[in-house]
Amino acid sequence: MTLKFRELLEQRWDESGSLLCVGLDPDQARIPVEYHHHEDGIVLFLKDIVDATAEYACAFKPQIAYFAAITAECDLLAICEYIREAYPTIPLILDAKRGDIGDTAKMYAREAFERYGAHAVTVNPYMGGDTIQPFLEHPDGAAIVLCRTSNAGSGEFQSQLIDGTPLYQHVAQRAANEWSQHGDVSLVVGATYPQELAEVRAIVGDMPLLVPGVGAQGGDPTQVVTNGASSTGNGLIVNSSRAILYADGGIDGAARVAKETRDALNAAR
Amino acid sequence: MTLKFRELLEQRWDESGSLLCVGLDPDQARIPVEYHHHEDGIVLFLKDIVDATAEYACAFKPQIAYFAAITAECDLLAICEYIREAYPTIPLILDAKRGDIGDTAKMYAREAFERYGAHAVTVNPYMGGDTIQPFLEHPDGAAIVLCRTSNAGSGEFQSQLIDGTPLYQHVAQRAANEWSQHGDVSLVVGATYPQELAEVRAIVGDMPLLVPGVGAQGGDPTQVVTNGASSTGNGLIVNSSRAILYADGGIDGAARVAKETRDALNAAR
Repeated sequence: MTLKFRELLEQRWDESGSLLCVGLDPDQARIPVEYHHHEDGIVLFLKDIVDATAEYACAFKPQIAYFAAITAECDLLAICEYIREAYPTIPLILDAKRGDIGDTAKMYAREAFERYGAHAVTVNPYMGGDTIQPFLEHPDGAAIVLCRTSNAGSGEFQSQLIDGTPLYQHVAQRAANEWSQHGDVSLVVGATYPQELAEVRAIVGDMPLLVPGVGAQGGDPTQVVTNGASSTGNGLIVNSSRAILYADGGIDGAARVAKETRDALNAAR
Repeated sequence: MTLKFRELLEQRWDESGSLLCVGLDPDQARIPVEYHHHEDGIVLFLKDIVDATAEYACAFKPQIAYFAAITAECDLLAICEYIREAYPTIPLILDAKRGDIGDTAKMYAREAFERYGAHAVTVNPYMGGDTIQPFLEHPDGAAIVLCRTSNAGSGEFQSQLIDGTPLYQHVAQRAANEWSQHGDVSLVVGATYPQELAEVRAIVGDMPLLVPGVGAQGGDPTQVVTNGASSTGNGLIVNSSRAILYADGGIDGAARVAKETRDALNAAR
């Protein structure tokens, strides 16, 4: 039987001793020059990144926009299949931030879980819980719902107070108390807002939190772990994409930055 | 020079005398049987739909999820190219409900405007205005921002009061007063919430509103026009997808329902 996202993630946290998620955002302009002349340069680059960083990773997270912009869905599929086959114990998160009415959401669930074989997909809560449900009803599905995102303007709506409580905390409450029936809901909270990370952790118990914003976006690993870890000392999927992929020193540099980031996170546990 | 979305739309409203947008959601299970055995069945079906309904349409709106679920981006590209070439005066809206941090949003803008040649793309406001900006900064770009969506659970967050005003009205205010610099921002407001449609119209002046929810979702065309039309009597892009695509009588039925829907909308102007 195939493990679902939450079980796989719990096992991987134990097995790897890592909270680091390696984000796969292949920007053609930044891929090392030695891959430029290969027909499958993106796939070769990402496979090398995956091989070099797997031992430091609790998850991999390809960002679909980087593939969709350049008509490279076949490359996304190739790297997803490679991760599933070569590293079957590492959860595969499709970062797509989908969200739509029920029948359309079912199509997005097919895209994430059937086409790409992801264990979980990021989704947007603005349209309400009935648009998240189709992702959870899929037999292979899990949803990672945007709560407090890492960008500078994320407070514009997410921090607005509703009955004295910011919107992102309402999202966290719904996620914890209503949407999550079988551990199949997680949340996105940016490393760039460590105080909010602590507030969300207080609401959601041991729910996994996907935390973008360390690395290129400047979030502090120590604060993330101090404020965001669960009662068991894990609970975090801390993503770094560009700082690893485009490290000085190419693939060796990527491995070094992945190891350093894992170690920086572990030093605070 | 290529007209941008808003200018093209204004011209098309005048030229067609129609407020109807034909949504292109090709569900394999519901496409007429005569297309099932063609290799390019989806494209042939959609071309026939486009040809049969163009005279009644102020816009076409393909829904990307229906193509992404079945590895049919090539079909989406084919129908987008067909619309651009055969009906260059009809605005092409990509329904994708994208939204992500700046660098990723730029990739989604490339997907919508460069890859598929859309005049506008639907986007989600939850992450804040800085995630909408990349769609507006693209030289060919326009954004249609989710405001009050047509689904039953849309009120879960959108109707929550912030300083006494529901969230969707805050989105409308930002769209009208901050994000829209050159008429390049529109909003989505569901036909299933006619009172909210009137409230949004009062906030946004003559901004175009994309209104899903007539047809299969049950919204009333008369209420939509009465509550949603702009001061010039247009201002609306009223979408119907399934009620047209899967009408009794195949392609002829689709043309009939499109004409009836256009007429029902016009009867209330």
